Amino acid sequence: MASSELVISQSEHKARIEKIRATLHQRRLRALYLTNPTRVLYATGFAHITTERPLALVIPVEKPLFVMGPRLEYDHIRRDCPLIERAHTYPDYPGTQHPMRQFAKFLSSEGLLGARIATDSLQGSAGGYGYRGPPITDLVKTSKFTDGRDIVDDMRLVKSRRELELLRESAKWSQVAHDILLENVTPGVSDVIAGLKASQETFARMLRRLGGRYRQLKAGLSPVIVGFRGQVGAESAIPHAAFTKQKIRKGDVLVTEAGVEVGGYVSELERTVMVGKPSSRARKYFQSMLKAQEAALRTFKPGVTCSRIDEAARKSVESDGFGECLRHHVGHGIGLDGHEPPWLDPGEKTVMRPGMVFSCEPGLYLPGYAGFRHSDTVEITSNGMSFITEYPRSLEHLTI
Amino acid sequence: MASSELVISQSEHKARIEKIRATLHQRRLRALYLTNPTRVLYATGFAHITTERPLALVIPVEKPLFVMGPRLEYDHIRRDCPLIERAHTYPDYPGTQHPMRQFAKFLSSEGLLGARIATDSLQGSAGGYGYRGPPITDLVKTSKFTDGRDIVDDMRLVKSRRELELLRESAKWSQVAHDILLENVTPGVSDVIAGLKASQETFARMLRRLGGRYRQLKAGLSPVIVGFRGQVGAESAIPHAAFTKQKIRKGDVLVTEAGVEVGGYVSELERTVMVGKPSSRARKYFQSMLKAQEAALRTFKPGVTCSRIDEAARKSVESDGFGECLRHHVGHGIGLDGHEPPWLDPGEKTVMRPGMVFSCEPGLYLPGYAGFRHSDTVEITSNGMSFITEYPRSLEHLTI
Repeated sequence: MASSELVISQSEHKARIEKIRATLHQRRLRALYLTNPTRVLYATGFAHITTERPLALVIPVEKPLFVMGPRLEYDHIRRDCPLIERAHTYPDYPGTQHPMRQFAKFLSSEGLLGARIATDSLQGSAGGYGYRGPPITDLVKTSKFTDGRDIVDDMRLVKSRRELELLRESAKWSQVAHDILLENVTPGVSDVIAGLKASQETFARMLRRLGGRYRQLKAGLSPVIVGFRGQVGAESAIPHAAFTKQKIRKGDVLVTEAGVEVGGYVSELERTVMVGKPSSRARKYFQSMLKAQEAALRTFKPGVTCSRIDEAARKSVESDGFGECLRHHVGHGIGLDGHEPPWLDPGEKTVMRPGMVFSCEPGLYLPGYAGFRHSDTVEITSNGMSFITEYPRSLEHLTI
Repeated sequence: MASSELVISQSEHKARIEKIRATLHQRRLRALYLTNPTRVLYATGFAHITTERPLALVIPVEKPLFVMGPRLEYDHIRRDCPLIERAHTYPDYPGTQHPMRQFAKFLSSEGLLGARIATDSLQGSAGGYGYRGPPITDLVKTSKFTDGRDIVDDMRLVKSRRELELLRESAKWSQVAHDILLENVTPGVSDVIAGLKASQETFARMLRRLGGRYRQLKAGLSPVIVGFRGQVGAESAIPHAAFTKQKIRKGDVLVTEAGVEVGGYVSELERTVMVGKPSSRARKYFQSMLKAQEAALRTFKPGVTCSRIDEAARKSVESDGFGECLRHHVGHGIGLDGHEPPWLDPGEKTVMRPGMVFSCEPGLYLPGYAGFRHSDTVEITSNGMSFITEYPRSLEHLTI
């Protein structure tokens, strides 16, 4: 990997914008109006904290792109994103004049009244934290707004070489974080404390090794998310648990998670871990989960429909007689968002292409007893798949 | 404070639901359909991670409440929330039959076809992570959906005694976290590492002191968010920075943040900190910021319009000749969400009432040089305000 900063280059962002413009041109649209922070980040590299304050990126088909947003983001945009040539700001939300009314004026000053505009929000705003306001479609009635969510989202399905590099760099550090996490697991320890220690030590190593090449784009306590998220002992049976009051105990089944943000991109590494010698019961479910993951992994290939991956894992689990332990499909696309299309789900008809990236994570859950799930991040290659997360998966390696 | 678990009690949730039902009754509505995770948490105490998978809480005016959601949340709801008597689930998203079509059937089975229903989403889903689907309003055409966002949001404006207790408990630990943060700040240290150390040490103390009384409701690496979020040296001039590559250096102006989740509630404590003896320039802006905060703090009182707080701070800054350094209004409501209505903004006409809780955080920003902002969380009392966050604010105390 080159010694440049670990982010998407400005030239790649320029190419993305040109691709967006080509789609707009083809659909006879005059502009794309984006409010979702991930879509804004994908198009320009500008990362911001979404709040109640509306912010929109507008990409006209021919003229320079611009942002409409709160005053407090102005210096941030100027510092971080030279691609965004202009920023129209309002003082704050709700303001003596509502920001959406000001957006209508900005669109007018940019010559976009009466235009056909694609958008990812007919409201005109991402709308967090109790935001209220008139829809932009009511304020700019001469323009025709159409659903444009697919324009950026379709581009995100297949990852570029650079995106794959960032995902691999993410996975490399997720693996380090997972190693350190397991070193901190002993009976009597709080899972949150073990996670925080691993986050801190991993981030310190990243700083030493990567230095100024590393830049966190998404705000948060740490770019290294590692721990158990409450999936400890019987509570590992709750796939989206948040917290447990249990300290880790001998005999527990644990489900881990490790994900590190690199240039906005995240990989997903999760393991089922046994604290002490596993019981024959635990061993049985672990092996069934592992067999299902292997069945899924063998099925990834260009030309195969996404639903087939889920089917392969499901059949494996059902043949073991544990079909009733399933609680969710086998996985999801992953990239700038932790979950993104396409889905490894019975209803997903998308056909896999090289460069698509997925989590692969069949799970077995037994309420009151335990949950069993590994998650790996994999890339579709020209003739099958390859692992982005490379980490031991066997019971022997994951018994501590 | 009682020795019970640090969450809103079931009886308070029951009272909230009855209040919601009274509003529904008054407005001749048959049900409230909620998708926003904070509103669901407020009504029931059920906290979940929102993803692409639709989840809705439905509160019928007369019949028992129920959730419609993904299979993976079923055991979670059963374990955490006895108030939710029924959960209708679908296998996963997108599914062979779209979840929203299944929601339409669930509403039918609950006798809600043809009903007037208030909702916080005409889509029928919170819609994260690339979710796509037909609006529930298109699938249940016999029912009439109306905007019901205000029903829960209005109830959240004035905090109950228990909510204030949880906010004070949050502030107590934010203060501990902030102390530990400052103990970890020395020239050469990464701001993220200092934050992670403070988070870990604070959480360990919380576990020792609170034991089983503490339960984190919102998923995250840690319930103790503490650090600088990139606001280090010149980058403190970016109010919503995310990250800095600068190590902390002598002479830096820093802006901190410390917030601890207790029972879903968060307080906000932020300080401008000087590393080493402040320059006369830094001193001047610090004192102007502090004077503005004091002017704002003096203005809080029941019966006063929210916009007056912003006006008091603004006038103070303008009288110092620094009006052009302002980038945002003076603050926001705070509770279950980090930002919530009402806003301390020129356009906010809400009149303050006892039990409302606000951040108070005028900020001065000088691009390329530094930012200056304290934030305190305050409660409106019967005759003025009282601090929820109690922490030194003077230059002397904040020079390290």
